[in-house]
Amino acid sequence: MKLPLGFRASGVHAGIKPSGKPDLALLVGDGPLAWALASTENLVKAPCVVRNRARAASEQPVRALLVNAGNANCATGEAGIWDNEDMAAAAAAGLELEKVQEVLTASTGVIGQRLPIEAVRRGVPAAVAALGDEVAPFAEAILTTDLVPKTVEVRLAGGARVVGVAKGSGMIHPNLATMFAFVLTDAIVDQRWWRRAWARTVRRTFNQLTVDGDTSTNDMAIALASQRLPADPDELAAALEAVAADLARAIARDGEGATTLLTVRVRGGRSVDDAMAAARGVAASSLVKAAVHGRDPNWGRILSAVGQSGAVADLGAVTVSVQGTPVYRGQPLAFDAAALSQAMRSTDVLVEVDLAAGEGQGEAWGCDLSADYVTINALYTT
Amino acid sequence: MKLPLGFRASGVHAGIKPSGKPDLALLVGDGPLAWALASTENLVKAPCVVRNRARAASEQPVRALLVNAGNANCATGEAGIWDNEDMAAAAAAGLELEKVQEVLTASTGVIGQRLPIEAVRRGVPAAVAALGDEVAPFAEAILTTDLVPKTVEVRLAGGARVVGVAKGSGMIHPNLATMFAFVLTDAIVDQRWWRRAWARTVRRTFNQLTVDGDTSTNDMAIALASQRLPADPDELAAALEAVAADLARAIARDGEGATTLLTVRVRGGRSVDDAMAAARGVAASSLVKAAVHGRDPNWGRILSAVGQSGAVADLGAVTVSVQGTPVYRGQPLAFDAAALSQAMRSTDVLVEVDLAAGEGQGEAWGCDLSADYVTINALYTT
Repeated sequence: MKLPLGFRASGVHAGIKPSGKPDLALLVGDGPLAWALASTENLVKAPCVVRNRARAASEQPVRALLVNAGNANCATGEAGIWDNEDMAAAAAAGLELEKVQEVLTASTGVIGQRLPIEAVRRGVPAAVAALGDEVAPFAEAILTTDLVPKTVEVRLAGGARVVGVAKGSGMIHPNLATMFAFVLTDAIVDQRWWRRAWARTVRRTFNQLTVDGDTSTNDMAIALASQRLPADPDELAAALEAVAADLARAIARDGEGATTLLTVRVRGGRSVDDAMAAARGVAASSLVKAAVHGRDPNWGRILSAVGQSGAVADLGAVTVSVQGTPVYRGQPLAFDAAALSQAMRSTDVLVEVDLAAGEGQGEAWGCDLSADYVTINALYTT
Repeated sequence: MKLPLGFRASGVHAGIKPSGKPDLALLVGDGPLAWALASTENLVKAPCVVRNRARAASEQPVRALLVNAGNANCATGEAGIWDNEDMAAAAAAGLELEKVQEVLTASTGVIGQRLPIEAVRRGVPAAVAALGDEVAPFAEAILTTDLVPKTVEVRLAGGARVVGVAKGSGMIHPNLATMFAFVLTDAIVDQRWWRRAWARTVRRTFNQLTVDGDTSTNDMAIALASQRLPADPDELAAALEAVAADLARAIARDGEGATTLLTVRVRGGRSVDDAMAAARGVAASSLVKAAVHGRDPNWGRILSAVGQSGAVADLGAVTVSVQGTPVYRGQPLAFDAAALSQAMRSTDVLVEVDLAAGEGQGEAWGCDLSADYVTINALYTT
């Protein structure tokens, strides 16, 4: 996959990951990049998050993004703040940028250990030398415990493209569980509009994604535009959401230990927020996730998770379907449990809920809880 | 353990549990009982919860409590409401009470299946015939997947006693995961005061207990007083909280698959609510629970869970200790990881956090995440 026009990127091994895998990723714009940032709400934020948020407040365009994997540079005291500044400075120097403020940074990996900043400094020239127009090396170098790189592309009618790159993935190596999503376009955008569009997109996609319920200190989602090609705003916004939703699903599917992408689609909400909250509640429930792994169409757990979500529902009329089969409508419905369990033996399980309280719709994504502890759980079948 | 004065109880097998174990528990007051109810906030509530809440609103005393295990009588449509009424009526008839409203009900077990009301009707005379002054038969008959009955007793200076009985336990057979706690005293209480004391106690104990983050449709905690012996209100309130906290810890310790009771003690909160929220957040974090199981003093996960809890903290001064060993104070501290990991090989792990933001204190209890999925998780050590 090629980068959108106006971007170059690379990924190299700088020596941060003991495995020898690529661990330093560089992304550069040929000119100023409009950009938008969404980041973790955790009170504990890594220096890269704090710095990028300050950069975002300035509303200035940026030119580059330097990402390292293998070390989150988080909870490392004041030294970590300077290490992060040094990381940005190394990229600015290597790229011969006038201002270090034009560089964004992102770190992911173990927390509480000093970033090996000399390795980063040594790696930057190699990353600059390796810059090219392919997405893959960059997508590879940002990974931690992910099993597969995650890239998505959508082409607009006018020729502009939206390309997304992400990493997950939570749960098994939770200190490495940071989520990064970087979405790039060569479309021409107004930065204010871009930021609004990104905020809306993140709310409807990454914020509806749950792997294990724990937020990271380093989570970030950044959207960058190189301002090359005209694009219809509505089409662009739709493409942005499509790319982000695809990345969210790819992250859920690659949740550590996961075998199944769980999609929860809610309609009939009193509001969109209600529908989204109910969808998130079902996707996040350990009990629902365990039932999905056990291929158990356990509407009881789904109903209970809806009830716990705070969403308004008409309990006498709520409907629940699993893989398209209605299993509950105000009360339990008769269904062929064996056949439905068989239909759930898939890499994709769809749960649909109608709250019967309005017109709001929302979707959320998660994964099953696999591994032996869940097989025990899964022994309990309807 | 004997019941407080003025109570009789029993537990029999009525035929609801296929295992043949006791599944019908009856508790009776010799006279009117002052009482207080706390119940699930889940929008989906079983008929027994709805009915008891309505009873509580009437402020009338009660005489008896009939509990069945093996069937939650939840999400069974309108039939379930009548089955629950029939259950209360059976107890009232068996006990020759004038009013069915004097009977409280509680059901726990599978949801979505009709309660075998004939079995309950047949069981009630046997339960009435078996009434005695021992706690054990009642404590046994309310269990579902619990490994052990849970009873606690505190004796007041004036001779009155507070006796608590509970069931857990969540996670592996989650449709049976309802928590019940029944606390009985022979102290003389003003019902209004009793209700305030119970609400405060529940907030500080059962609401600070987390096994897997999912609430049940049937959770209830009921406190009953037989009005026999004078008691000092402060001493009684303290005993009530001590009994409830002990029950909460017993439930956490018996969380399905759990090997360790996790106690999280937070001080330095801007408010008590903040401290309690932070404690709850740490105890509920899947990542912290997995680290506890792996005997990994992973302060990073603890810090991140604090950050996620919404509690105000002075991040430059936050301290974290595990088993009494300080591991973080504004930044990572040097400690002997092997020795601390060894110290965590216990049935009790204590995490202490100072938010450095005020005087608020709070405590929460949880359990480790055991089983093989967690051993994978636990392989990642600091």
